[in-house]
Amino acid sequence: MLEGLKEEVFQANLALPKQGLIKYTWGNVSAVDRQQQLFVIKPSGVDYETMQASDMVVCDFEGNVVEGAKNPSSDTPTHAVLYKAFPEIGGIVHTHSTWATSWAQAGLDLPAMGTTHADTFYGAVPCARFLTQTEIDEGYEAQTGQVIVETFKERGITPEEIPGVLLHGHGPFTWGKTADAAVMNAVVLEEVAKMNFITRQLNSYAPELPQRVLDKHYLRKHGENAYYGQK
Amino acid sequence: MLEGLKEEVFQANLALPKQGLIKYTWGNVSAVDRQQQLFVIKPSGVDYETMQASDMVVCDFEGNVVEGAKNPSSDTPTHAVLYKAFPEIGGIVHTHSTWATSWAQAGLDLPAMGTTHADTFYGAVPCARFLTQTEIDEGYEAQTGQVIVETFKERGITPEEIPGVLLHGHGPFTWGKTADAAVMNAVVLEEVAKMNFITRQLNSYAPELPQRVLDKHYLRKHGENAYYGQK
Amino acid sequence: MLEGLKEEVFQANLALPKQGLIKYTWGNVSAVDRQQQLFVIKPSGVDYETMQASDMVVCDFEGNVVEGAKNPSSDTPTHAVLYKAFPEIGGIVHTHSTWATSWAQAGLDLPAMGTTHADTFYGAVPCARFLTQTEIDEGYEAQTGQVIVETFKERGITPEEIPGVLLHGHGPFTWGKTADAAVMNAVVLEEVAKMNFITRQLNSYAPELPQRVLDKHYLRKHGENAYYGQK
Amino acid sequence: MLEGLKEEVFQANLALPKQGLIKYTWGNVSAVDRQQQLFVIKPSGVDYETMQASDMVVCDFEGNVVEGAKNPSSDTPTHAVLYKAFPEIGGIVHTHSTWATSWAQAGLDLPAMGTTHADTFYGAVPCARFLTQTEIDEGYEAQTGQVIVETFKERGITPEEIPGVLLHGHGPFTWGKTADAAVMNAVVLEEVAKMNFITRQLNSYAPELPQRVLDKHYLRKHGENAYYGQK
Repeated sequence: MLEGLKEEVFQANLALPKQGLIKYTWGNVSAVDRQQQLFVIKPSGVDYETMQASDMVVCDFEGNVVEGAKNPSSDTPTHAVLYKAFPEIGGIVHTHSTWATSWAQAGLDLPAMGTTHADTFYGAVPCARFLTQTEIDEGYEAQTGQVIVETFKERGITPEEIPGVLLHGHGPFTWGKTADAAVMNAVVLEEVAKMNFITRQLNSYAPELPQRVLDKHYLRKHGENAYYGQK
Repeated sequence: MLEGLKEEVFQANLALPKQGLIKYTWGNVSAVDRQQQLFVIKPSGVDYETMQASDMVVCDFEGNVVEGAKNPSSDTPTHAVLYKAFPEIGGIVHTHSTWATSWAQAGLDLPAMGTTHADTFYGAVPCARFLTQTEIDEGYEAQTGQVIVETFKERGITPEEIPGVLLHGHGPFTWGKTADAAVMNAVVLEEVAKMNFITRQLNSYAPELPQRVLDKHYLRKHGENAYYGQK
Repeated sequence: MLEGLKEEVFQANLALPKQGLIKYTWGNVSAVDRQQQLFVIKPSGVDYETMQASDMVVCDFEGNVVEGAKNPSSDTPTHAVLYKAFPEIGGIVHTHSTWATSWAQAGLDLPAMGTTHADTFYGAVPCARFLTQTEIDEGYEAQTGQVIVETFKERGITPEEIPGVLLHGHGPFTWGKTADAAVMNAVVLEEVAKMNFITRQLNSYAPELPQRVLDKHYLRKHGENAYYGQK
Repeated sequence: MLEGLKEEVFQANLALPKQGLIKYTWGNVSAVDRQQQLFVIKPSGVDYETMQASDMVVCDFEGNVVEGAKNPSSDTPTHAVLYKAFPEIGGIVHTHSTWATSWAQAGLDLPAMGTTHADTFYGAVPCARFLTQTEIDEGYEAQTGQVIVETFKERGITPEEIPGVLLHGHGPFTWGKTADAAVMNAVVLEEVAKMNFITRQLNSYAPELPQRVLDKHYLRKHGENAYYGQK
């Protein structure tokens, strides 16, 4: 079942430690089959050195296991909520990568301070609030997804323009058209989080990128008039 | 004698440089056999490139060498005191890992600021005080163990909930059910020390993790109702 | 056409990720043939793992493609302007390397604080201003080159003495007599950017290098009386 | 001539990039033959990938080349002065390692803040002053050695207790009984420079290590009553 997608998700999970985004099993990647309304996700707490493509778990949009011998990632309900709420996304990544997680712990939005940011994120990456006790009791992981959805709605931003979020006290989620794109966005987010930290320490008055430069860089890579890369 | 445990301790010592926790011989790992009341520890100052499992030294809970051709780690009396005082632990790690050691040099407890911390440590990792001149004269290494025990007693915390400590001006000790678990806790401590540094520099008012989130993350991985990983 | 130069440029591009200066395709190297008034540059957005020397693109000093099946780097017009304005340079590198980019985001010149800097840059590396809306509309990449040229003119510095620049909110460009020399200057700039950050954090009053030491170090490596290295 | 020492010096030079202490050719190691009053040093500006043991240069204590086809390191006169003034040392290392160089650029002594420091350096590592114009004119590299000697004399410290120094605006020199020991001391200095930076940023009031702990750690590794390692 969904063997091709399992292989993609498996490889994308292996990319996390290669890219320096995780230690041990502190991360998970999933990808969705929109026609079948199913997604494939990493099993929970399985050693990356022994994990195989066939260990990937198939789930529906309620987070129920449809196929798989292992427990899916404990963050599965968060992925399910995001796939349901954000129909344009194809893959999701969660990590505890050092710099992005530190911004999340600081409870700060990651501002757009440079073109490295603007090439991928069309504005600040928001930091979503802590969950309430009630939300935790109702289902921590699913409610985490709901808080992400709420954050994007309240800010008036779309998951296509801003393919990631920080969770206060926790860490980043990123997404993209595919699992690989979501991994690349996680790499960009981590690098930008590091550069913006250094920038702020060097100059606490450093301004955000002017809107005109943000527009220029985002739009030369995204949308109809993009001219970066090969056609 | 204790050949299996020697191999475990040997491999766990080799994991320290692989995980980036030590340079040269600046660390040591031990593991205990509770039935025989003996523990196995790395020899002192032996090059990791030539060290073998058979070089591991067997000691009793007074820190006396029971078997082994080499001198045990100079920190052996600290390990002995901890095994005696903390009956729930099976392995101990000492390193001078960069970020945890820097918090130790700063004389600060490492606060629980995120879920990466909460997944392993159920609250702040305490920084134990400097030894007095009298304690140093009475036996620096054994008294170091006593100060760790005193710190946990005074704070009202258990070595199971908080599997590690910082020693003021020195560095971290971590422990766990096995030598491998103690190494993993050393990796977590180092990573959290780095993330909390960045967090504090970004936002000196960043709060500790709310108790409800600390509870949720610690308890989804530990205790009866844990649901992380495979059964 | 220009096969030797293509190989040089190809190898210099591969050096960027090896030296830790870029992730993915976030950089580009070019080199010029002064007799033919043509330069060779990396194609845009091509994966470094599959890229070949024959993928390099040949352009003229107006930035037009003279030979090549792929689109050249989107930054090609910047390179073209620099080759025209700075006749002494033979190769150009653009990266988003972490530390240099952070100084660029902070909008600060990189001061000469040590001899590592002085061995390569004969004074501060300037941070060029943001482009205006008009400049962006007229051609972002070519105007970026013009702003670099303007910066050197206004500061009264030469591209030989200061073989690099920071672009506010963007990142560094470096150059040199060859593509390899430009890569080495990018490595020096990145390292100096890191060291100067640490220096400023340690001591916000740390002075710039005295002129006499700047002179000594720059001139023992550059110019007629240089005595560093082998003849 | 001195083939064994050439091999030692060659290997110690190769250790510098392996230990992450240098990029390109930004460092040099030498070792002395006390009986013959000669030392062996790396050639100037030779690529580490092609350098061979036979490229090492033999010099006397005036810094004159006694044997060797290549120019010796431009820092040779500094090494010569140190071998003459410090009869107890056998090997010398100079690097521009990131963290130690940053303390040097900040013009600050590196204080003893932890036991990692105390295991090797029996107190603060001094930062020597900038050279005057006259000293630069008289011979920059030899006078650099003289300023190091002056610094140790004025501070009343010995090169055995404190096997290293920072040069204001430049970088560190370390030494030891052998070239290998000098490399190890360079690694310790770099690591301690990093940890002390982090410590100061975490807590600007963090105290230096109490004298009693400094004594304990230094003396358990050095001198008659040392008990660290194997006999």
